[in-house]
Amino acid sequence: MDTPLQYKRPREIEERSFAIIREELGGREFPAQEAPIIYRAIHTSADFDYADSLAFSPGAVEHALAALRQGACIVTDTQMAKSGINRAALQQAGCEVFCFMADEDVAQEASRRGVTRAVASIDKAVRLNRPTLFAIGNAPTALIRLYEHITAGFSPALVIGVPVGFVNVVESKEWILSTQAPYIVARGRKGGSNIAAAICNALLYQITERAF
Amino acid sequence: MDTPLQYKRPREIEERSFAIIREELGGREFPAQEAPIIYRAIHTSADFDYADSLAFSPGAVEHALAALRQGACIVTDTQMAKSGINRAALQQAGCEVFCFMADEDVAQEASRRGVTRAVASIDKAVRLNRPTLFAIGNAPTALIRLYEHITAGFSPALVIGVPVGFVNVVESKEWILSTQAPYIVARGRKGGSNIAAAICNALLYQITERAF
Repeated sequence: MDTPLQYKRPREIEERSFAIIREELGGREFPAQEAPIIYRAIHTSADFDYADSLAFSPGAVEHALAALRQGACIVTDTQMAKSGINRAALQQAGCEVFCFMADEDVAQEASRRGVTRAVASIDKAVRLNRPTLFAIGNAPTALIRLYEHITAGFSPALVIGVPVGFVNVVESKEWILSTQAPYIVARGRKGGSNIAAAICNALLYQITERAF
Repeated sequence: MDTPLQYKRPREIEERSFAIIREELGGREFPAQEAPIIYRAIHTSADFDYADSLAFSPGAVEHALAALRQGACIVTDTQMAKSGINRAALQQAGCEVFCFMADEDVAQEASRRGVTRAVASIDKAVRLNRPTLFAIGNAPTALIRLYEHITAGFSPALVIGVPVGFVNVVESKEWILSTQAPYIVARGRKGGSNIAAAICNALLYQITERAF
């Protein structure tokens, strides 16, 4: 069989991809700790909108990296986002990732209270009572519930607010943007589990040696 | 705590989302079996580019649905795409999904042959010797390897060719478009594991009662 393209090592492809992204951004400058996150969101979607839509609260990345260095956990609102977070990086950083969406107690609580499983998942995560980065790529109700906890005094290590969609999504992000919590939010409709995972990876890669 | 937005049931939100998508597409007509796939790709990304970029080979959806009805399996190139495929729909359809990327024998074969794990994964899937839908949202090398198998006589039940990225991606899709295999391809750089999973779900929902 012919080989129509030369196979290249994944790491080499990633480096060339980032060079192309930087080049197509035409020399735009981003804060040093935010740039890898912006680049990786574009890398995972081929969508340059993220260069404009990603909003960072002041010091959000520093705050999240400090928390991760101290073993903060990550909570996602989909199994898909959890699956997209680099296992080797998590392990090297000594961090854990959880998704409670399929948990039986979450299903029961959601049913009993008449809320989404995403809401019950967030409540379960808050009850962990440990430093937590929330990576929300799907459920606006998860983000809204987080907003409610924050206004009641809860302090997340970071809110990654990147649900995607057409109903409640834009509003849910605006609520997070109105808080004093550390956040990374994709303004507008776009986002997704892939973007949530990419942002987590971009953070983890800043505190690991990236030998993977 | 206040509730800034009324929580809505996920299914209700999805129906409203699809209505918005149809409205914003301004009455554009798509073939009946392709429309749900186009809508769902937009739904999962909030990116209307998919209305133009998704290319379907003649009869691809019918072919894939017939295969799924007969218990074809789905093979993905990421755990993330596998995670994004609706478990209840899979179960109702009597279908299985596999991702071989983390398999020890795949890692060994890739290392021995000096190819990517994605290539070795495709080879393993082809050796299954059963009707298979390939959902490729990440690795252009997987798609290129599939192209090689197809030109050597292999007949996939469907190739979902939606890797995302900047290196080899556009070319890998063009190779699939040049074949006679049943395909759904997102032309250009865009795609991803989320899009691959969304297309699988859109297919499964056409052959299930969607009571989930």
